[in-house]
Amino acid sequence: MVAELIAVGTELLLGNIANTDAQMISEKLSAMGITVHHHTVVGDNPQRLTEALETARQRADIIITTGGLGPTYDDLTKQTICKTFGRELELHEDILEEIRSWFQTKMGREMPENNIQQALLPTGSTIFDNPVGTAPGCAFEENGVHVLMLPGPPFECRYMFENRAAKYLEKLTDGVIVSHEIKIFGMGESSVEEALREPMTKLTNPTLAPYAKLNECMVRATAKAETREAAEKMLAPLVEQVKETLGDVVYGVDVESLEAVVSDLLRERGMTLSAAESCTGGLIAKRLTDLPGASSVFRGGVVSYTNGVKAGVLGVPEELLEEYGAVSEPVARSMAECCRRICGSDLAVSVTGVAGPDRDDRGNDVGTVYIALASEGGTLCRKLSCGKGRGRDRVRSAAASSAFDLIRRQLLGLEV
Amino acid sequence: MVAELIAVGTELLLGNIANTDAQMISEKLSAMGITVHHHTVVGDNPQRLTEALETARQRADIIITTGGLGPTYDDLTKQTICKTFGRELELHEDILEEIRSWFQTKMGREMPENNIQQALLPTGSTIFDNPVGTAPGCAFEENGVHVLMLPGPPFECRYMFENRAAKYLEKLTDGVIVSHEIKIFGMGESSVEEALREPMTKLTNPTLAPYAKLNECMVRATAKAETREAAEKMLAPLVEQVKETLGDVVYGVDVESLEAVVSDLLRERGMTLSAAESCTGGLIAKRLTDLPGASSVFRGGVVSYTNGVKAGVLGVPEELLEEYGAVSEPVARSMAECCRRICGSDLAVSVTGVAGPDRDDRGNDVGTVYIALASEGGTLCRKLSCGKGRGRDRVRSAAASSAFDLIRRQLLGLEV
Repeated sequence: MVAELIAVGTELLLGNIANTDAQMISEKLSAMGITVHHHTVVGDNPQRLTEALETARQRADIIITTGGLGPTYDDLTKQTICKTFGRELELHEDILEEIRSWFQTKMGREMPENNIQQALLPTGSTIFDNPVGTAPGCAFEENGVHVLMLPGPPFECRYMFENRAAKYLEKLTDGVIVSHEIKIFGMGESSVEEALREPMTKLTNPTLAPYAKLNECMVRATAKAETREAAEKMLAPLVEQVKETLGDVVYGVDVESLEAVVSDLLRERGMTLSAAESCTGGLIAKRLTDLPGASSVFRGGVVSYTNGVKAGVLGVPEELLEEYGAVSEPVARSMAECCRRICGSDLAVSVTGVAGPDRDDRGNDVGTVYIALASEGGTLCRKLSCGKGRGRDRVRSAAASSAFDLIRRQLLGLEV
Repeated sequence: MVAELIAVGTELLLGNIANTDAQMISEKLSAMGITVHHHTVVGDNPQRLTEALETARQRADIIITTGGLGPTYDDLTKQTICKTFGRELELHEDILEEIRSWFQTKMGREMPENNIQQALLPTGSTIFDNPVGTAPGCAFEENGVHVLMLPGPPFECRYMFENRAAKYLEKLTDGVIVSHEIKIFGMGESSVEEALREPMTKLTNPTLAPYAKLNECMVRATAKAETREAAEKMLAPLVEQVKETLGDVVYGVDVESLEAVVSDLLRERGMTLSAAESCTGGLIAKRLTDLPGASSVFRGGVVSYTNGVKAGVLGVPEELLEEYGAVSEPVARSMAECCRRICGSDLAVSVTGVAGPDRDDRGNDVGTVYIALASEGGTLCRKLSCGKGRGRDRVRSAAASSAFDLIRRQLLGLEV
C-alpha cells in the first residue's frame, strides 16, 4: 500500500508553520507498514488542490489530506475533493449537534452560523468525529483509492489519526501490523546499527529499523500477522533480543521520554526529586513539569545561573566557588547536596557546565558539564563532554538528558 | 516569480524529521516577494525526483531542492538534476580543497574518498560554497527556469540560503526587496488585521502582511525599489504608521523574541532579574538562558513547584499558602518579593497558576495564572486567563510570554 499526503494551507507556503502533520502521519504510517512516496503542500487554492489530487490518485492507494476543514471561505478541501471524485456534500445533523455543543460547553458561546459547513461531508463517507475541536474528518473509497481528510491543527490531526484514521487504515491492510519502539540513550545510531546488523538485514517479518532522534535514538520492531496476538508473539522475542544485545542503554519500550521514565520510577518508589541547574538554566525542571502530574515526584529546584544564587540561595560555600570555579566537581556535588536539603527531596540532581558559545573564564571547553546526584546514601558526580561543536542548544539539551539518565541508572541500581 | 521547493530524503517520508527547510525557505522567499505554490517531498529515488523536477519546471520559475548532496550512494540530487536538465557533472578542484581542509581543521581527520563526489557540480553552475559543512550547493538557469540546490541539514541549509542563495535570487528580481518584521504581543491576528485593514488591502508596494505565531503575531512590511536605501525610505513611514496604529502591543521591529527584548532592556539599564516559577516550572528561566550571555542580566531563580519549596526555599509564609492557596494574588506577590530578596536581583517575576489538565483543589480553572513583578518601588500583580482550552503546553507558554511582557512594560514605563 502506497500513501500520499497532501497538506492544504497557504500558511505552510508562507513559511508560517512547518508541515509537522506530515511528519507525524508519516511516522505512524511507516509503523503500520504503509509506504509514503510523496508529501505535497498546496495553498488554499482549489485549482492546485485539484491538480494535486488528480496526480495523487494516479500513483497512490491512499490519499490523506490535512487542513482546509475550517469554517471560513478559504477552507475548500471537502468541496474540492467532492468535485474531483464526483461526490456531493451532505449535512449530518448529529455532527452539527456535536459542534454546537462543543461551542456551548468548551467555548461558552453559541456556534457561529458559518460553522454549519463543518457538518457537511462527502456522501458515503466514514465519519471521523472530533472531540478535541470542531472540524470532523472523514474517509471514502473511490475506484480503489482511499481518500482521508483530517484537520490541520496538529493536536486535532494527531488525535484524529490515532483514534479514528488508524482504525480505518488497519482494515485496509491484510492482517494487523504491530510495532514497538525501543528507546535508547547513550549509544549512537551507527553503533546501534552495527550491533544489530544481523537481525536488521536478515529479517523481513518482523523487521527492525533504527531512527536517530535529538540526543538519542530508537529501534522500531514491526511485525505483520493475522491477529494482534500473533504479531505480539513474533515481536516479544525480538524486543528481548534487542534489549539483551544493547544492554542498559535501552531506557524503555514504547515510553514517551527519558524524563517520563524517571518520573515513573520515582512515582513507583514514592520518591521525590529536586534540581539545581546552572548551564541547563531550568531545562530539567521544564522537561519534568511538561509532564502532567509532575508535582507528585518533582518538588522544584533552584536555577542557580550566577555564583550569587549558588551561594545565597542554594548555600554552596563561597570558598568552593572561588577555589574550583563554578564548573567543577566540588561545586556540582555541593549544589546537589544543598538542593536536596533545602527542597527536602529524596534525590537532587545538579548540572553545572559551559553551554557556550565561549569557554568559561577558567578555560573549560564548551560542552564540559558536571552532573551530580545526591541521595540518602551519598553523592555521585560525573564529568561529561556534551554536544561538542553542536551549539548552545545541543549542549544544554544533551546535559539535561544525561542528568535524567544518571537518575534512571541510580534508581535501577545500574552502573553509573 | 513563482518558486517550488522539492525536498529529497527518505527520512522525511518516514517521518524521522519535519521539513523545516521548506518552512525556513518559504518564509524568506515570501519576504523577498517570491511566491511559493508547491512544496514537494520525495525519497532518495531518482525516478520520483525526476518526475517532480519535470512537473516543477512546467509550473515554476525557480526550483529549489534541499537534501541529497551528501557523499553516500543514496545522495542523488545532483546526478538526477543533471540528467533532467541535460548537464554534466564536473570536478571543481578548489571546492575539493575546501572539503579536504574542512575535514582536516574541523574534524581532525583525512577526507574519506567518497567525499570527492561533493566537489562534482553541474556544468555552468554558480557555486555556493559551504563554510559550515561539506556539501556545496549551486544554481543554474535553463530555459528561463532557475534551479538551486541546497544541502538538507537545517543549519547548513539556512546558512547557504541566507549567505549565498538569497543573493542569487535577488539578482533575478528587478531591484531590491527589503522587509521588516513588526512583532506584536497582546493583540490577536484578527484584531491586528482589522486595525490595519486599510493599508493592508490598499497598498501594493510597500505591502503589509500579518502572520500568527505561537501566543503572538507579527506584521511584515515589504518594499521593492531600485536600491536598498529607496526601499528603506518607503518602509520607514509605514512601520511608524503600524506602530502608531497598534500602540504598545508592538514589542519590537526585527527583534528575535519577547525575552530577547527584555534581556536587552535589562542590559541597557544595568539591571538584573530573577524568577520564581510555579506552573511554568522553569520555562521562563529556560527561555532567558537560551540566549547567549544571559548571565549578565539573569541571576537565576527558584522553581517552586510544590508548597514545600515555596515556603522552604523562597520563604513564602505558610499562612498565606494555607489561607489563599498557591494560585492566588497574595502568594504570587510573596513569591516575587521573596525571590528578589534571596536572589539579590533588581527585579523578580513570579508565576503561579493552573497549567492543567485539571483544575486545582481550590476550584481555579485551567489557565488561571497570577503573575507578579517585584522591584524596588513595590510589587504589582496581574491575574490572567492564559491559553484557555488549548492544553498544558499552551497555558505554560502563554503564561511565560505574559510574564516577559509585564517586565517589558514595567521597564518601559508603559501601562501594565
